Amino acid sequence: MTTPSKALRQAQDTFAALWAELAPLGRHPTTGGYRRYAWSPVDAALREWFAAQCAARGLDLVEDRAGNEWAWWGDPDATPGVVTGSHLDSVPDGGAYDGPLGVVSAFAAIDALRDDGFRPAQPIGVVHFGDEEGARFGIACAGSRVITGALAADRVRGLTDADGVSWAEAYARTGRDPERIGPDAETLGRVGTFVELHVEQGRGLVDREAPVGVGTRIWPHGRWRLDFPGEANHAGTTALGDRQDAMLGFARTVLAAREAAERHGCLTTMGKAVVRPNGVNAIPSAVTGWLDARGAEAEAVRAAVAEVAAAADGARLTAESWTDATPFDPNLASRVAALLDAPQLETGAGHDAGILAAAGVPTAMLFVRNPTGVSHSPAESADEADCRAGVAALTAVLADLAGDGR
Amino acid sequence: MTTPSKALRQAQDTFAALWAELAPLGRHPTTGGYRRYAWSPVDAALREWFAAQCAARGLDLVEDRAGNEWAWWGDPDATPGVVTGSHLDSVPDGGAYDGPLGVVSAFAAIDALRDDGFRPAQPIGVVHFGDEEGARFGIACAGSRVITGALAADRVRGLTDADGVSWAEAYARTGRDPERIGPDAETLGRVGTFVELHVEQGRGLVDREAPVGVGTRIWPHGRWRLDFPGEANHAGTTALGDRQDAMLGFARTVLAAREAAERHGCLTTMGKAVVRPNGVNAIPSAVTGWLDARGAEAEAVRAAVAEVAAAADGARLTAESWTDATPFDPNLASRVAALLDAPQLETGAGHDAGILAAAGVPTAMLFVRNPTGVSHSPAESADEADCRAGVAALTAVLADLAGDGR
Repeated sequence: MTTPSKALRQAQDTFAALWAELAPLGRHPTTGGYRRYAWSPVDAALREWFAAQCAARGLDLVEDRAGNEWAWWGDPDATPGVVTGSHLDSVPDGGAYDGPLGVVSAFAAIDALRDDGFRPAQPIGVVHFGDEEGARFGIACAGSRVITGALAADRVRGLTDADGVSWAEAYARTGRDPERIGPDAETLGRVGTFVELHVEQGRGLVDREAPVGVGTRIWPHGRWRLDFPGEANHAGTTALGDRQDAMLGFARTVLAAREAAERHGCLTTMGKAVVRPNGVNAIPSAVTGWLDARGAEAEAVRAAVAEVAAAADGARLTAESWTDATPFDPNLASRVAALLDAPQLETGAGHDAGILAAAGVPTAMLFVRNPTGVSHSPAESADEADCRAGVAALTAVLADLAGDGR
Repeated sequence: MTTPSKALRQAQDTFAALWAELAPLGRHPTTGGYRRYAWSPVDAALREWFAAQCAARGLDLVEDRAGNEWAWWGDPDATPGVVTGSHLDSVPDGGAYDGPLGVVSAFAAIDALRDDGFRPAQPIGVVHFGDEEGARFGIACAGSRVITGALAADRVRGLTDADGVSWAEAYARTGRDPERIGPDAETLGRVGTFVELHVEQGRGLVDREAPVGVGTRIWPHGRWRLDFPGEANHAGTTALGDRQDAMLGFARTVLAAREAAERHGCLTTMGKAVVRPNGVNAIPSAVTGWLDARGAEAEAVRAAVAEVAAAADGARLTAESWTDATPFDPNLASRVAALLDAPQLETGAGHDAGILAAAGVPTAMLFVRNPTGVSHSPAESADEADCRAGVAALTAVLADLAGDGR
């Protein structure tokens, strides 16, 4: 790429200012990690921030049938537009970059184009997808899945959080109508192309020595819930042979999941557990564990999950989600990679971009280098220079795809 | 034993009425288990109930230097008395009998004695020990340990619950002064003999076909905390070889603890775990697990714990409590067993009676048969006939030990 214009340099500075504004929202004072969960008070504050950014730029904000927010520069009902954006929610004690980097970069890129006098031939949109991580209700990309019809309205309404609050109840508490959610062809019809910028969550770009890369596909991935039965009893008086200890089945399964991943060359993780009654001197009556499994080959992932299920003898296995391998539009990826002179790479992480691609929307992803590869952690980071390179790349891609109407 | 007197039969009926009064307090509507934690609003309601029972019987209620409550029939400052009672708190989703059976039986036994015209030569006391289970702050028998000096005031004040509330803060919120807690020789000096009636937490009395038994000793037992370190990272993008997954060390240790118990003929339980950040798609950065270990022989328990520590390579092991084998007064046990024609048996469960015995108070325990052996569970139970037999036994023991001053 060439030397940045004055407008781009200013927009890159704006990026830093927006970043600083967003930083305190939902950050835990002790862990330093983010706890930005769907339809929570922190989520409402993030939505206020998003609306204020749109208003400051004169972008028209529209909310779709699942609470995702779309802000438009130009009229997408006249011509489908080029949309960019990402999500603002987080996993428990997540990092600052996963999601927000794409939203903040979107506003900065629009600033760069406008200050340069650019007038888009196709409208340009910024989207804020809700509930991407599924941290509260258990299904990732719930917002984009609902509007594309990949997730049934009845199913999402009935999901419950750890306190037993249903998705429908949480949504209604924000003043929205849970009965109105569902597939949203009108919203999707406005999206000619979608480009999501995201921090990389591995070290692919470190290995390639590139600040920015272009996604080719998302690995097949899924989540399973395993309920291990037991019988509560006193830890000090119940003979070993009389015990039904739910923790033992869980522990065996955790180890079996790791072995299965090694055998089949894929990734498995059991990162969440709920123990009942969770008392030091009480034999667990129930342990619920979750299995996350992914890999380059769907067959390998399915074989690993089958082995975990066999090891979890006696447990009830419930598939919570499954997403086949999702290729991004190969022509679009080639065009963007050529424009940016950036490497192409695949990823094991799911994204709203994958949901839109699976629904037939021409979609591309830009990844910004992650120096440690660490993500879903307070230690997640990106170098400032790489974030600035991300803004420059997104600006160039939007200009190329929307076309200059001057 | 002989045919029950009319006074005893009435007191046994009173037992059922008191039991029904206490039943709703702290009962969870869904699980049916009890959540009666120290210094909580439910604990305050239980204390109100206890005070009302004392007032109804004209017993003088005194609170000691750790919030345990002592109600006296007669003047223990003139002559040390015979005390009975137990605790009212519970483990998470515990049963109805563990603790309350001893307190309710105490009031019923006093009613039986009084209605029979009995006048104790030595005063008789009813005690309600606070925080026996340690469910909220992690140390069992905190109330009796503090007044006997087995637990330092500074240590108990600094304990914190799952929400980060300190013991001192929780105690102060109830209007009590945490700076005043400590060893209480004056209170202990009033206790000539202590008799705790408790539901059995195993099947020893089922095997012996006896409704009531007499305790000989409490097994040595302890608790250890294990902190497994990890590195939070994304479940979908972090290669297996790059992971530091805290859950794997925890799972290996759970299985090692069971094997060590089998090898050394003792009991180990890992019934509590806290996972951070506990997200489905986040590799755990930390798992804390707790080990409960007990057995007839202290050496076997220590050997098992050493093996668990070795298996938990890389984890930080912290001893939270250790109690050596605690024999009850053998002469007292023989006297009570002969009086009741009841079998003697040992137990793996810790009790306030064990703390008092270790502090030199002549102490006995009465166990009431548990038909399933299940305890620390909503399914914990005792037959009504056995509860009535427990009241009769306790009445006889109090009469024998206090002596009739008519």
